[in-house]
Amino acid sequence: MIQIAIIGLGMIGTSLGMALRSANPKESLLGEVEIVGFDQNNRAIKDARGRLAIDREARSIAEVVRNAQIVIVATPVQAIRDIFTQLATLLPAGVIVTDTASAKAQVCAWAHELLPTTTHFVGGHPMAGKEQSGALAADPDLFKEAIYCLTPDPRAHKDSVDVIDAMVNAIGAKSYYIDPDEHDAYVAGVSHLPFLLSAALVAATSRSPAWKEMAPLAATGFHDVSRLASGDPTMHRDICITNHVALTRWINETITLLVDLREHLAQHDSAALEQFFQHAKEKRDEWLKIKPNQRPGEDVFSNIHTVERPNLFGFRRPQPDRKRRP
Amino acid sequence: MIQIAIIGLGMIGTSLGMALRSANPKESLLGEVEIVGFDQNNRAIKDARGRLAIDREARSIAEVVRNAQIVIVATPVQAIRDIFTQLATLLPAGVIVTDTASAKAQVCAWAHELLPTTTHFVGGHPMAGKEQSGALAADPDLFKEAIYCLTPDPRAHKDSVDVIDAMVNAIGAKSYYIDPDEHDAYVAGVSHLPFLLSAALVAATSRSPAWKEMAPLAATGFHDVSRLASGDPTMHRDICITNHVALTRWINETITLLVDLREHLAQHDSAALEQFFQHAKEKRDEWLKIKPNQRPGEDVFSNIHTVERPNLFGFRRPQPDRKRRP
Repeated sequence: MIQIAIIGLGMIGTSLGMALRSANPKESLLGEVEIVGFDQNNRAIKDARGRLAIDREARSIAEVVRNAQIVIVATPVQAIRDIFTQLATLLPAGVIVTDTASAKAQVCAWAHELLPTTTHFVGGHPMAGKEQSGALAADPDLFKEAIYCLTPDPRAHKDSVDVIDAMVNAIGAKSYYIDPDEHDAYVAGVSHLPFLLSAALVAATSRSPAWKEMAPLAATGFHDVSRLASGDPTMHRDICITNHVALTRWINETITLLVDLREHLAQHDSAALEQFFQHAKEKRDEWLKIKPNQRPGEDVFSNIHTVERPNLFGFRRPQPDRKRRP
Repeated sequence: MIQIAIIGLGMIGTSLGMALRSANPKESLLGEVEIVGFDQNNRAIKDARGRLAIDREARSIAEVVRNAQIVIVATPVQAIRDIFTQLATLLPAGVIVTDTASAKAQVCAWAHELLPTTTHFVGGHPMAGKEQSGALAADPDLFKEAIYCLTPDPRAHKDSVDVIDAMVNAIGAKSYYIDPDEHDAYVAGVSHLPFLLSAALVAATSRSPAWKEMAPLAATGFHDVSRLASGDPTMHRDICITNHVALTRWINETITLLVDLREHLAQHDSAALEQFFQHAKEKRDEWLKIKPNQRPGEDVFSNIHTVERPNLFGFRRPQPDRKRRP
């Protein structure tokens, strides 16, 4: 039995709990798991329990990590620094710590600086989401076929990386090892820029004096492009702050494109406009084909690091919770 | 029996044919209809026939409009001017002409200038779409509960407006009468700006040297915000050209917002960022509630013009195709 602590029972934390609890222990490399959950919001704990995302609840960070072999920090990114500071005095040697934040350079730096050198940090970021937040929006299938970025700390033991890899496998996702800075630059483009443009679309149209008349004309196109604007404002704010350098580059890139487009419109440049839309269509249609849950991209994007017989916790000292074993 | 000609059997023209043919003649104010279709592309005619969107096909514009009481021009907007020029010499008095283009000021001006004064032009724009094009993507339910903008020419007889209103009702959509210039300004914001931002997102990210590595990290958020980039480039180009004035205003509005956001990022202005995302979320969540296919908005956005006993074709001279009637 492996004990996993989840700190932060929002949509992602709760989904992780549900996915881990519903994994078949005979197929999962982690075997049987026990999930202990904590959130500073009692309502969130209650909701997570209602969704069967946790076996037990804890009343504090100290309690949730007691006897845990794996600690998952699934809070908003701005809260992580403080949690790592608390964990520093709580975690015995050998505990594996991971997170789910969408900006990795900052979180990895905090982990390296704050967590005990005897623990093992393997940063994580599941490339799956929803615009709804909270435990009630959680979904045990959220991670199925999703890419799950992993950014191990240089100090993390190879076996601890295998354990997190096994966890990623257990929830149906695919590990993707990546440098934290690269991760942040890429994710700023394919994940953060989209929510920023989505919110910008709603902001631009809804501040028009004619919004009341325009609103009923908005149809499925507006619906989809604006979907991410309904996401959690605090999460969006935190991501912007934590990943501002990369995101600023993508904002500049988008402004450049919009200025070009405005120029094409002013010039009635049909050819340039058609080329622009044609190129975008080709690239998107290509992207649809290489999506990681479809076979054509499988060779390129499947796990780089394949766990055959992971030495789960073999490196730990002290051994995990022997009393519970027969 | 009312004969309806559809010129242009793309996704919209074919969907219209399917919707009109599948409407219950006992409930529809139009009664029995016969759909005759034409497209300059033979393949499109064949596909539309395969989807049961037309009763008969025609080999020319002259043939398709012969004996038609209603002519629907569902071609790309740039082709409409030429078609109106051809219709000028073909249409007898009393024929009702409508279109489906998403830019109405230009099309209404062409209709007023080019169509015979004895015909009746009622511009139309169904607020429903798909990123796929062509007859194979057509859907008879595409217009169900959708808003259908109508921009009657000042010369159009009141009864001709009732006929198109009845047609809109027959396919399950809701008429929304609007000034063509207003329509274009509004639709530029809620329909054209979204596809432009969608394409800009794909263009910005896919031209990065790291696109190959980024692409597999893109998940559902990228998928939805970029969906419209897979739309027909020719259609997007035409809309940009035809509606460039309104669209340019929205591009400027978006650039202003992005510049503000960049400034908030540079200043690490958490409060301003949160306010921005909070406001966008509120506005979108509000919009979701007032969607016209949901009851709360019904009072405000239901048909302004209600047909009780439309005097269908009563005003026509000559009378429609009397020989067919018993």
